[in-house]
Parts: sequence; structure tokens; C-alpha cells
Amino acid sequence: MRLAELGERGFVEAVLKRLRESGVEAGDDAAFIDVAGVKLAFACDMLVWSTDVPPGVEYRDVGWRAAVACISDLAAKGAKPIALLASLGLPGSVMVDEALELVEGVRAASVEYGAAFRGGDTNEAREVVIDVAGLGLLKHPPIKRSGARPGDYVAVTGPFGSTGAALYMALRDLKPSDEELRSRLWEALRRPRARLKEGLALASSRSASASIDSSDGLALSLHQLAEASGVGIRVDYVPVSEEARAFAEEFGLNSLDLALYGGEEYELVVAIPPGKWGDAVAAVEEAGGALLKIGVVTRGKGVRLCLKERSGELPRRGWEHLKPRR
Amino acid sequence: MRLAELGERGFVEAVLKRLRESGVEAGDDAAFIDVAGVKLAFACDMLVWSTDVPPGVEYRDVGWRAAVACISDLAAKGAKPIALLASLGLPGSVMVDEALELVEGVRAASVEYGAAFRGGDTNEAREVVIDVAGLGLLKHPPIKRSGARPGDYVAVTGPFGSTGAALYMALRDLKPSDEELRSRLWEALRRPRARLKEGLALASSRSASASIDSSDGLALSLHQLAEASGVGIRVDYVPVSEEARAFAEEFGLNSLDLALYGGEEYELVVAIPPGKWGDAVAAVEEAGGALLKIGVVTRGKGVRLCLKERSGELPRRGWEHLKPRR
Repeated sequence: MRLAELGERGFVEAVLKRLRESGVEAGDDAAFIDVAGVKLAFACDMLVWSTDVPPGVEYRDVGWRAAVACISDLAAKGAKPIALLASLGLPGSVMVDEALELVEGVRAASVEYGAAFRGGDTNEAREVVIDVAGLGLLKHPPIKRSGARPGDYVAVTGPFGSTGAALYMALRDLKPSDEELRSRLWEALRRPRARLKEGLALASSRSASASIDSSDGLALSLHQLAEASGVGIRVDYVPVSEEARAFAEEFGLNSLDLALYGGEEYELVVAIPPGKWGDAVAAVEEAGGALLKIGVVTRGKGVRLCLKERSGELPRRGWEHLKPRR
Repeated sequence: MRLAELGERGFVEAVLKRLRESGVEAGDDAAFIDVAGVKLAFACDMLVWSTDVPPGVEYRDVGWRAAVACISDLAAKGAKPIALLASLGLPGSVMVDEALELVEGVRAASVEYGAAFRGGDTNEAREVVIDVAGLGLLKHPPIKRSGARPGDYVAVTGPFGSTGAALYMALRDLKPSDEELRSRLWEALRRPRARLKEGLALASSRSASASIDSSDGLALSLHQLAEASGVGIRVDYVPVSEEARAFAEEFGLNSLDLALYGGEEYELVVAIPPGKWGDAVAAVEEAGGALLKIGVVTRGKGVRLCLKERSGELPRRGWEHLKPRR
């Protein structure tokens, strides 16, 4: 069977199964490592031009996005980013200045989130590929994907849909009439932000039982959290961003779909035991963020939507590589 | 200017210059990081199918080679590999079993060198790309590229040329008449080894002033060591592997060139102060390895060959991506 038939998720599951059979622990946003008594989180994120870079996104943005994807993995576990490395694959036809902008984007993100960018590796490749590896310090126990328990609240760190809308706009070359909306959508696509303060606040307050970042889309992230924890999730509310609402209205789209299946959005999706909800909200708000309750962890499995406008099983899909494009 | 005109080395220098201007420390085989008092080495190595994988090398070998390249970077600094992550870029046309073999190769190498393979990331890409990030523990001060001083001996951990010969054989589909030679060359190409015991022995005996691995070829590695240390190197002896000699003889090649410009060979190239030579040899031999003296560090700059069969400046070249192929 070819990867295109199996799909990225199927392949990842096959890899994880194989690794587990060999005694390898894997499958969270980051790996947890204890070195000489120091607890670290270790993550990597690859970004590939042909599948991950929509038109209009520039080299510097690509470097930023690759770094933020990795930093977001660390943030979701409550790890403080310490150091980043970037491996580049570059075609010979790329302009030197563009390639330097790629590096500059990684550096800018590392500065923004307080990590040291410490170099990496360069290779020739048929298309632009950038892989960012990051090392983070865990001052508190990591917030794993697997800790959610029935009764826990499910919450997110912000509204969804802007990146989905922006991707739709970029791929179809649409121009929202409101110029400010357009520029905010571009910003979401080109300069996503990692919820680092929020992740650190949740870890230090020890108020979250599970966490994942929403880089594969809200729907898929909910499924992954539920599966890793062996629980189900009921979703009562999906916070849709203003930008996604306005964009959906102008172009006749369903804003809920943009919010559920967008991807490349770096909110945290977390589970909080009810007794710790107050602590969690206080910690995240003190850090300058917000925690929005969207549902509850249930027994059983699967993710169910219970919204006024839509209810039933939430399809397990998101942004997925290796399958024919929608 | 395009990257193809500048070449990989030129680009790497441009990146390092830009990073240094921004206060970023980079340019050694690995980055050195101090986290909560624990000293770590952090490295990554990308392998790209179209430029790094000769015909006849299989998926499992590619995973092994990518992991060994990263482990060798840690070994050269005297760091004990702790954990590896692998990011994969895969075309949808790749067979699932082949992709799993890629992962298996990384796992096998991690087991061989005592590191924990802890997962990674998967992406769709136009060609197979694998980037391995590795974290190593430094129990002793790292052996940097920059510590060589005039008068130090220059030494290597083994003979050179087998990989260069093997690459030549694979790219031209040659068949050495001696079957054992053929299989030893294939082994060198498919299953290179990192000089981990040697690197750890040199670090714990504190006998080396500088170190680099020879992944870009002996000639270029000597130049890089000399440049990083602000010194020159005089080479009096180049140990050529038996396999390279036999192959060169059969196919009318110069075995010295195979040894100098081969690349993807993971010997260590080190500088040893004369007063520590005995300690260095004893430590490496106790670890089961060997140290071969090939020259001496000089004042000034550049690398000079002083062999019976060839003398003069050693051209600063090696395996280089991003330039038209030889």
C-alpha cells in the first residue's frame, strides 16, 4: 500500500504502533526527557513548501511559522523553550536573500519566545523544507495528552477559524472588501502565535490534566486528546473568531467549519478538573491570556458536538497530508 | 544571486555571519546548551533523497545514515547521545512498508548508540527528506572546533576513502571483481558508523583541544577545523583504507583523492597537544579505537599537504550541495 492511500494519520498510527512494539515511547506533542535530573521537552516540526506554504506567504514568514509550530508543541506541554535548531532543505534556484530571510524568520520567533536560536544544518533539496527542533525546560510536570478524565472541563485559549479563513482566502486569491479584515487574516496566516504564556501558566498552577496544541485543527486535536486519554469529549460551544465570521459571511461559507477544520492555528486545547477551574482561569488570565470553556470530558470515546446549529459525532478530520486534496 | 551560484559553503558562511551579527552563537558540529546546570549538546542533520542517497541504498539504510550523521556530531563533541527525534518528509507514492523501514533504521541506530528514539513529525513532501535531531549529555567540557593551537598534533580515528570509493561504485554501477571488497564497500555506504566511544574517551580524558567529524570529507573538515581555530594545518600522512586502495587500483583511480574528498565518512579529526598525546592514545585505545597522527597544527592559515606523492595547498573542497555536480 502507498502512503497516499493510507493517509498521514494512518501512517503516524502505524509508526506509533511499530515504535511501541519496540518499547519506544512516542505520540505526544513533545518527548519528555530526564537528563541528569533535569526534565526537558523535545519537539520537532517540519514545514514543506509544496504542502504547507500557501501563495502570498513569504520566506521570512515560513521561518517564523516553522519555529512557532515547534514552540507551540513545547508550550502545550508547559515547557519553556530554551534552544532551537533549524535544518534547511533548499533548491539551488532559491535566491540567497530569500534563504537568509527564512533563517531570519526562525531567529525572530526564537527572540519573541525567549529561546536561543543555535544554528542547524543546510542541504540541497528539490523544494524548500525547514525542520525546527526545539528543547524546552519543564519546571513542573509536563501536561500530557493522556491525562483527561471524565468530568474534566475542556477549554481553549482563544477563538478558532482565522487561519482556516486566511488559508481559504490565500488559496483562492479572494479579497475581502474590508481591508482591515484582509490584513488581519494575512497576519494570522503569516505570523501565527504560540500560546506560551498560557501553557506555562497552566503548568505552574498544575491545574490542567491534559493538553494538546491545535496545529492539526480543532476537530482533530479534540479527537487526539480524547484518544490519548481513553475518554470521550462533548463539545457545547465552539468559539469562532470575528475574522472567520466576517469572512464566512462575505463569501458564503460556514464559519463553524472554518473553526473546526482550519489547522495551523496554535491555540491550546486543554482539560481541567472542575475543582481546578478557578485556579486555571486565574493563572491564565494573570499571564495575559484567556480560557474559554467549550465542553466536558465524558466516559466512552469519540467527540460529540452539542451545538444549537449542529449536533452529533464530530468527524475525525483535519488538515491532513498524504491524501488527495479536498 | 541564487544559491546554486553561491554554493552550500558560501551560504552557510552567509548564514553564520548573519547569525553572529544578531548575537547568535553557531557554527560547530553541535550547539552547547546549559540547562539548569546540565550541559547538553544539540545537533540536527538533514538527509535528502535526491542529493544524499545513491542508488542501491535502501530505506532502512537511509534512516540509519541520518541518525548516525546526527550521533556523529554529538560524538565529535564528546557528548553521550540521550534522545533522538526524526522529522520525515514523504511523497504519497512511497510504500508504507518502505516508510516504516526508514523509521526502523533510525530506531536501530539509536539502539546501537544507546540513545532513546522518541518519535518526531511526519509531512508530505515531493521527495524523501529525513531530519534527525539529537540531544547529548556533556559530562566533560565539549571538544569544540575552535581549540586547536600551533604545535598540537592532528589525528584521526581511522582510515579514509571507503565511502568515497563506495559512492563512486554506486553512482557508476561498478562491480569490483573481489566480492568481499564489494560487500565491504556497500557496508561502508549503507551502514556508516559513528566514532562515539572515541569521542567520549577523548572528552573524558580531556586530551583533545579541538574536534570535528569528517562528514563533509577529510579535506574540508581539516579546513573547517583550521578556520574555526584560527590556525593552519600541515598534513604529513593520509591513512587510506584498504578498500579504497583496492578499488582505486582496479578502476584506475587515485586513492588519495578518494580519501580526501569522499564525504559521509564519520571519522573524527582532532587536535591533541603533544603533552597529552599519550593520554589521548591510551584513552581511545582503551575504548577499543585507534588514533592515527596525520599532521600538526601550524601558525598562519590554510591546510598544506606534505606527502611524498603530493604536496602543496590542499584545495578547500569536499562534498558540497547546491553546486553543479562534478
